[in-house]
Amino acid sequence: MKHISIDTIKTWERFYRANFINCLSGFKSASLVGTVNAEGQSNLAVFSSIVHLGSDPALIGFINRPLAAAPHTINNIKATGVYTINHIHPSFVAKAHQSSAKYAVDINEFDAVNLEAQFINSIKAPFVGESFIKYALELSEIVPIKQNNTFLVIGAVTDVLIDDKLMEEDGFIALEKAGSMSCLGIDAYYKTELFERFGYARPDI
Amino acid sequence: MKHISIDTIKTWERFYRANFINCLSGFKSASLVGTVNAEGQSNLAVFSSIVHLGSDPALIGFINRPLAAAPHTINNIKATGVYTINHIHPSFVAKAHQSSAKYAVDINEFDAVNLEAQFINSIKAPFVGESFIKYALELSEIVPIKQNNTFLVIGAVTDVLIDDKLMEEDGFIALEKAGSMSCLGIDAYYKTELFERFGYARPDI
Repeated sequence: MKHISIDTIKTWERFYRANFINCLSGFKSASLVGTVNAEGQSNLAVFSSIVHLGSDPALIGFINRPLAAAPHTINNIKATGVYTINHIHPSFVAKAHQSSAKYAVDINEFDAVNLEAQFINSIKAPFVGESFIKYALELSEIVPIKQNNTFLVIGAVTDVLIDDKLMEEDGFIALEKAGSMSCLGIDAYYKTELFERFGYARPDI
Repeated sequence: MKHISIDTIKTWERFYRANFINCLSGFKSASLVGTVNAEGQSNLAVFSSIVHLGSDPALIGFINRPLAAAPHTINNIKATGVYTINHIHPSFVAKAHQSSAKYAVDINEFDAVNLEAQFINSIKAPFVGESFIKYALELSEIVPIKQNNTFLVIGAVTDVLIDDKLMEEDGFIALEKAGSMSCLGIDAYYKTELFERFGYARPDI
């Protein structure tokens, strides 16, 4: 086994290092975040750093890169307080990844990558019409990460849209049946296969 | 498609809701966190809420549940400033999941679940001997999440241990070749299969 110190990693070429460190933390949830600005223009962007914070209350976070690199999503969320997170499936994963390109602020990425902006009831932010599992959130807090100028965006789930055939008896959602994808590093997308469910672990078992 | 509001979700039985919301955020990185307390006793616990924060500097976070529910890992990290994160593979996933049981503070989970506590060079925290990809971190900051009394634990990568045959030409790590597992919800573990790598997206392509 090779032992690599951070002093070595710091000397690596930028994209090589980004690939490596992004993979090191493991598989992630491939998701599209839908927002709208104060003037009503929609924005769509792929995010991989979704993190479960708690289920009661139902809180989900994601990491937004520094403002200079990725201003649109976070600025729209600040402006409207509402956003959607949409699972990505194989049929539109190429379009989803394309939404990570740096489009100008006046470009609607739904149109640019050809995905449907779906508006449901009175929820201001657009869902991805093609997604089988998606949810809307209300902004709770934006926590600045001072170490690298990123942000932890914390949202409270308000609405879930799901094919209820995917929901199992105990609340589990078998995402592989919907083809929800996992991602790795900065550009790789994965299919998944259930290995095992273990149940709640107790010390004496 | 079914539209479920948060008002409905709030009425659900506790474990049903936990399964559902934990699945909603998508696939996660299944990892074991190794720590040691001030007296030198090792601790091991499975964590699923690993989040990539940045690659320059190399920062990786994880969410620790409230202190009353999960005190050992975070207290050890506060005491020593050092911890390891270890990928989980099919050969020991059952043991890894068992480490999520609520063992008493004086129990060494490495012994309880029969995994090897591996100490390398002068790194104080134990690695999981059976893991093919693992890294050590130095605590940077513990950020309290006031909404639900959880914590974002931010660490700076200091050392990586990896079979270098897994590293590709551009720094990508093909985790499926190592059998690193993804997880979902509170008790499900998944194998993965590469669907596609897309490269860096640009608006004009």
